[in-house]
Amino acid sequence: MPDVYFFGNGKAEGSARMADILGGKGANLAEMTSIGIPVPPGFTISAQLCGRYLADRRLPESLIAEVKTAMRRLEDAAGRMFGDPSNPLLVSVRSGAAVSMPGMLDTILNLGLNDKTAQALSRQTGNERFVFDSYRRFIQMYGEVVCGLKEPPGEPDQFEAALETAKHHRRVTRDIDLEAADLRALTAKFKTIVERASGRHFPGDPWDQLWGAVEAVFRSWQAKRAVDYRRVHRIPDDLGTAVSIVAMVYGNMGDDSGTGVAFTRNPSTGERQLYGEFLVNAQGEDVVAGIRDPEPIADMAAQLPAAYEELVRTAETLERHFRDVQDIEFTVERGRLFLLQTRRAKRTAQAAVRCAVEMVDEGRIERREAVLRVHPDQLSQLLHPTVDPKTPLQVLAVGLPASPGAAVGKVVFNADRAAQLGAVGQPVILVRRETSPDDFHGMVAARAILTARGGMTSHAAVVCRGMGKCCVVGCKDLDVDEAAGLVRVDRWVVREGDWITVDGSSGRVIMGQVPLVPPGVNEDFNRLMRWADEVRMLRVRTNADTPADARRAREHGAEGIGLCRTEHMFFEGDRIQAMREMIVAMDLEGRRRALLKLLPMQRDDFAGIFREMDGLPVTIRLLDPPLHEFLPHDEESLHALAVSLSVPLERLRHTVEMLTESNPMLGHRGCRLGITFPEITEMQAQAIFEAACQVTVEGVAVHPEVMIPLVANVSEFNRQCQLVRATAERVFTERKVRVEYLVGTMIELPRACVTADEIADVAEFFSFGTNDLTQTTLGLSRDDAGRFLPFYIENGILSDDPFQTLDQVGVGKLISMGVRLGRERNRQLKIGICGEHGGDPRSIEFCHQIGLNYVSCSPFRVPIARLAAAHAALSGQPLYTTD
Amino acid sequence: MPDVYFFGNGKAEGSARMADILGGKGANLAEMTSIGIPVPPGFTISAQLCGRYLADRRLPESLIAEVKTAMRRLEDAAGRMFGDPSNPLLVSVRSGAAVSMPGMLDTILNLGLNDKTAQALSRQTGNERFVFDSYRRFIQMYGEVVCGLKEPPGEPDQFEAALETAKHHRRVTRDIDLEAADLRALTAKFKTIVERASGRHFPGDPWDQLWGAVEAVFRSWQAKRAVDYRRVHRIPDDLGTAVSIVAMVYGNMGDDSGTGVAFTRNPSTGERQLYGEFLVNAQGEDVVAGIRDPEPIADMAAQLPAAYEELVRTAETLERHFRDVQDIEFTVERGRLFLLQTRRAKRTAQAAVRCAVEMVDEGRIERREAVLRVHPDQLSQLLHPTVDPKTPLQVLAVGLPASPGAAVGKVVFNADRAAQLGAVGQPVILVRRETSPDDFHGMVAARAILTARGGMTSHAAVVCRGMGKCCVVGCKDLDVDEAAGLVRVDRWVVREGDWITVDGSSGRVIMGQVPLVPPGVNEDFNRLMRWADEVRMLRVRTNADTPADARRAREHGAEGIGLCRTEHMFFEGDRIQAMREMIVAMDLEGRRRALLKLLPMQRDDFAGIFREMDGLPVTIRLLDPPLHEFLPHDEESLHALAVSLSVPLERLRHTVEMLTESNPMLGHRGCRLGITFPEITEMQAQAIFEAACQVTVEGVAVHPEVMIPLVANVSEFNRQCQLVRATAERVFTERKVRVEYLVGTMIELPRACVTADEIADVAEFFSFGTNDLTQTTLGLSRDDAGRFLPFYIENGILSDDPFQTLDQVGVGKLISMGVRLGRERNRQLKIGICGEHGGDPRSIEFCHQIGLNYVSCSPFRVPIARLAAAHAALSGQPLYTTD
Repeated sequence: MPDVYFFGNGKAEGSARMADILGGKGANLAEMTSIGIPVPPGFTISAQLCGRYLADRRLPESLIAEVKTAMRRLEDAAGRMFGDPSNPLLVSVRSGAAVSMPGMLDTILNLGLNDKTAQALSRQTGNERFVFDSYRRFIQMYGEVVCGLKEPPGEPDQFEAALETAKHHRRVTRDIDLEAADLRALTAKFKTIVERASGRHFPGDPWDQLWGAVEAVFRSWQAKRAVDYRRVHRIPDDLGTAVSIVAMVYGNMGDDSGTGVAFTRNPSTGERQLYGEFLVNAQGEDVVAGIRDPEPIADMAAQLPAAYEELVRTAETLERHFRDVQDIEFTVERGRLFLLQTRRAKRTAQAAVRCAVEMVDEGRIERREAVLRVHPDQLSQLLHPTVDPKTPLQVLAVGLPASPGAAVGKVVFNADRAAQLGAVGQPVILVRRETSPDDFHGMVAARAILTARGGMTSHAAVVCRGMGKCCVVGCKDLDVDEAAGLVRVDRWVVREGDWITVDGSSGRVIMGQVPLVPPGVNEDFNRLMRWADEVRMLRVRTNADTPADARRAREHGAEGIGLCRTEHMFFEGDRIQAMREMIVAMDLEGRRRALLKLLPMQRDDFAGIFREMDGLPVTIRLLDPPLHEFLPHDEESLHALAVSLSVPLERLRHTVEMLTESNPMLGHRGCRLGITFPEITEMQAQAIFEAACQVTVEGVAVHPEVMIPLVANVSEFNRQCQLVRATAERVFTERKVRVEYLVGTMIELPRACVTADEIADVAEFFSFGTNDLTQTTLGLSRDDAGRFLPFYIENGILSDDPFQTLDQVGVGKLISMGVRLGRERNRQLKIGICGEHGGDPRSIEFCHQIGLNYVSCSPFRVPIARLAAAHAALSGQPLYTTD
Repeated sequence: MPDVYFFGNGKAEGSARMADILGGKGANLAEMTSIGIPVPPGFTISAQLCGRYLADRRLPESLIAEVKTAMRRLEDAAGRMFGDPSNPLLVSVRSGAAVSMPGMLDTILNLGLNDKTAQALSRQTGNERFVFDSYRRFIQMYGEVVCGLKEPPGEPDQFEAALETAKHHRRVTRDIDLEAADLRALTAKFKTIVERASGRHFPGDPWDQLWGAVEAVFRSWQAKRAVDYRRVHRIPDDLGTAVSIVAMVYGNMGDDSGTGVAFTRNPSTGERQLYGEFLVNAQGEDVVAGIRDPEPIADMAAQLPAAYEELVRTAETLERHFRDVQDIEFTVERGRLFLLQTRRAKRTAQAAVRCAVEMVDEGRIERREAVLRVHPDQLSQLLHPTVDPKTPLQVLAVGLPASPGAAVGKVVFNADRAAQLGAVGQPVILVRRETSPDDFHGMVAARAILTARGGMTSHAAVVCRGMGKCCVVGCKDLDVDEAAGLVRVDRWVVREGDWITVDGSSGRVIMGQVPLVPPGVNEDFNRLMRWADEVRMLRVRTNADTPADARRAREHGAEGIGLCRTEHMFFEGDRIQAMREMIVAMDLEGRRRALLKLLPMQRDDFAGIFREMDGLPVTIRLLDPPLHEFLPHDEESLHALAVSLSVPLERLRHTVEMLTESNPMLGHRGCRLGITFPEITEMQAQAIFEAACQVTVEGVAVHPEVMIPLVANVSEFNRQCQLVRATAERVFTERKVRVEYLVGTMIELPRACVTADEIADVAEFFSFGTNDLTQTTLGLSRDDAGRFLPFYIENGILSDDPFQTLDQVGVGKLISMGVRLGRERNRQLKIGICGEHGGDPRSIEFCHQIGLNYVSCSPFRVPIARLAAAHAALSGQPLYTTD
């Protein structure tokens, strides 16, 4: 395979399909050349050389020979000679990886200039100002890129300082107002800067310049910013960058010249209309670097009408050819248009949806292709209000983004106050050290919840995600003084009633009222989602604990409930009181009495959910958390509880103490509760089946699926399953109604995965509880991981937070084993996932690959999951356009 | 297959190999018959019928026919007719499972007696006293076993009361002094007792008696005490008991008759000498129940010389034939010896070792067989503490030394109380007049058993020897008043809760808490252990944290240290202070300063251990527990620490709070500490390698193996491994000494098991930390499981405590996977286990099966592990003798 690929005169050795070798930029330059778009001639050095160079720190001899051959062809095409003192060819040396990494890699323009070629060029163009403008730019870039003279941000930059001095001396403020002589002097000054800093002569030989530039571009692949960017964007390190060497064209040759950037459609709104900016008499980096303020592209029609017309035509050609919105760079040299780059345009979620849908309507792409044009991660932008990106922000602190969306409101410090103000329509944000079940009514009333403590699975986080309410937790910088009614953050003090804005998508807490952008769910969005639904194979359910959640999720397209956590129902008002009475009861009789109070409430909850989910399956998990979560822990609440339950304070304190566990995550919870207190399971099963019978009579189609939590051993499942089935029979007989139902289990312990065959013999469905499965498989408490997990991710020990994206290598292996063992024994076994990973696109792709039946996620992530499931189903199909 | 197997006249349809069908007793009766031992004729109903009967609660018709046929053959052999009013045949109906369950199942003697047959027998024998003695025993047994009239312990027993009244009336104290008329009257009285209690006529028809007895024996398989016994001894529930129906012979026909129990060697010491007890003019249950005090077997030589001589000869024949020590029951009827049972003798560990070794010396068994003759679990008896001989003792009384070892505990007087206090960890000693099978649960819970009655073969003695539990029986001076909750001994009164010490090796009962010393081992033991070492494939290492532990373990045969927990070194004196200083330090500098204080102490610790382990590998685990374990938590200690460290109390309190975790088991510990605080790992590695260099110079052969704990991800291992290796190089260079060492990891998380291939690429050894692996795999905190794990085990949800015996199905599957994946990648990988399961025989067998290189256990369990490893290596070889 050759190392160098030539393009020019309407012919190219490369093509758009060769991005792996030529980089996105090189591949598209070749492609544009082939389809007759005006592109300056050039050639591209394969990205495969990059790794080799980085290992050897030396360009291979064979490459040098190939480049020399290609340069001769380029000289022919350009009609100029590289380094020729009378008719010199200048080139740009451009980086470009297979995946776009905008601004991360280096580029050098105007290479080939030295004192002789500059003189020749001045003669040829009759424009000395242009030549020295180019020359001084070249020296600066070369100094920075090749010699490494780039100062860290904030440090005084010698080149800028010299430029400022020159302008000051001339009493002008704009670069453009400097004259040829000034620029010539500046060129000399720049050269001195480089030579002094590098301790070497500035290379005059264009070939020396070229090799230095090629090596520098390769090296830029290893620069810290590029490495960081790749980590964040999950780009493999061994991809490497190609190097394109392209004949220079000049946008800075006068007022008939210019340079610009354009999008074939509006990347913000998706509107079909050429969108972009340009600058007269400038080189490309002026636009990108924001040094001069560019003009809207439409103004070009007046200033450079012919070139503009050709640009519009070319943009249309490119979009049709590449079948997607293009982001193009162009230069006009003395009225003649040259395209320097085209690539897939980055766009907002809103634009992505509109473009995808409209391009289907225009007959340009297929529906499946449209589905792939919108990334699932983007959708949350459309589903929640977001902070207006154009507003300058006063960020007070950053916590964990526990539940997405943004909200503006007045600070309150306790739930009663939140409920009280919320009831009269005041927008409030509840700020607490941490929340407890007692705060529930206040959380319902608040626009957002902000806590100083707690992790992504803390009470506040879980409850808010369920409600789709904006929430930031674990914001450690907040010093919340609830008694004094204020919170200190650094040197700031926020008091009750002060306005703040909370961004649950980024974790930011912002001072004051920031304008929000409303969610962008529209008909385009709905159409796209329907197309996604047509191709996906995974069902998408939701985690919902209330009829309101269920309704919202169904609106978002949920096809059932995958996880209804019954314990959340116990936290409100009377219920928590009855729950506590049950826990504190000394004997079976007392527990039964308390459970009898809970029964009608649970039954009503289930009936409400069943009605909302008419015709769809509803998976109800039996009581899961350790009992102490329902008890108060502070003296005052204990005292109040003792009085209200008429039990001695001492006994209550003793109960709390007895229930305290060293590792509650691994303690007396899940089915262990139902086994030691079968009356709890019995009450819950009774409530489920009585509700099911009741709504059946009303004409609702009900499909309950009873889920036994935290099963480690099939015997545990058997005991609980028998009790559930016996209770069902009893209810059916009493009510004279039968309801079809399933009994299955949550697979959330490693032991359940490795003994899934035994469990599948008796369970009718599995639902992988990947939150707990991740905690146990990795031996990692989510609530405690904050002290080292961020360090792990920053230092590349873990590539992702395993609670956000499923650890496929570890946890995924256990899941795959569970699926395989389970299906071997029971081919009909229904298998889903109900951990938070059920809403994470990469995890959903994994779920698709291992053949799950469904994923279940919080109501607001349902559209994301639907789209991700569609992407997963389409992956492997050759539909993605190159970047 | 027939359901009934006949034996008699020197021929038998069964044999010793058929214990599964005939039970141990029936099989050996058949075998003895075949080899010419005098055994009364009889037949055995297959144990396979037991399960069928228990399911149907009805004896199958076919069985009834077979029994009738067999009875005709028995009548022929015995020369009497069953139920014949002139020449009646009486039979015993005996239980017997394939595995011995002494005293757990029921037996009925003298069956076939009714008023007519009694009359005939009186005529025939001219011994009315004997006949009615037998008759009243039969009615009592039948009443208890078939009609269920057995009173709970402590309740007044009607039969005993009637017997006492009769004796009182006669003014005699011994049963034997009652005359025929008294016994006839008693027979009538007993019949009335049974009829009144059961509400039915006592069955006069011998066939009715027989069917009732057979069914009752089958039912006794399901009695609570039998079920409990099987659970403790891991005997499968579906084994069932056989029923042997044997012609009666009579030990109660006069002074030329008797009955006894004998061992072919002393079951307590192993001495080669016929050992046992006998009673003149008595039936078997008098010996077993401890109602009369029997005489030593040697005295039989004078009283029944011919029978004694034949007994000695027969014992020798049986031991040679069965190739093991036998426990035999015999009856002498008018001078003629009959063997009623022979079985493998239960014996103390000491006896087991001595018999095994001597039988090799006598050329009777092979060494490998000898190794299998001692169960690893028994060895703990040899390692039991004994009473410190130097302590002055207040000896209350001396009884029979029924089971060796010494124990200190608080007195309790009933089994329920013992079980209750034992369950919460109280050291209790169960003191009873005598024990019965119903006391079993209390005996399990007690540290020792002390009885006022009974001999060396009484229930208490047999059961305790089986469990290796300290036991003193027949301590006649004790006046046990269970109702009053006290025991009088001479002028002393010991009440419930008082401390006593029991010495099961000497029979002494001592007031108060006496210091105990660990026992030594003898040359027999050492020879046996060497034979075990010859056959085992697993290496046995020890878990030891100090030079003293290391020395003790090496004395016990440890072949290295498998786990040296460095954190235990930090808890003493200055060290904890330095450790706390490190934890409280705000910055790296402060931590380094504190670590520098710890370095020399750690180095000395390691040097001491290396010296003790000269030539053997030493695995050192780097710091593992979460840091808060090193900090005080109460106000007072915090205050003191703040003063001594000169830090503000507030800051200290804040540190404690910051380090507090929701689930410390899954928190910031293990290698997570070494990764976030690499200076800790560095200090520890430096201490290890400096110590290694130092002792190398002294001439010690040192093989350090550095173990990185709690690795979930290979990247964690890599980071820590690199740091350890870099530190090693630095130390070697400084000290100018090189030491060979390994760096490996503890595999204690499910993720490490499923990614063992990746880890094996870089780790040089694996050590399975099965304690934590069990906790994470099962999602079960060992500290918190107490509230439901006992319930789980009692209810059969789990068959074993997974922290005692490895959960092979779940955790074991992950371990197997880890071994397979690890060895696939690195065939040389050294793999061991260092959880507590490393000392559990069943878990060791599993370790052998999956091909581990070594197990590591506490010093005192090393011999147990060596023997268990040998058993594992020999398992599958046809060496075990039948029970």
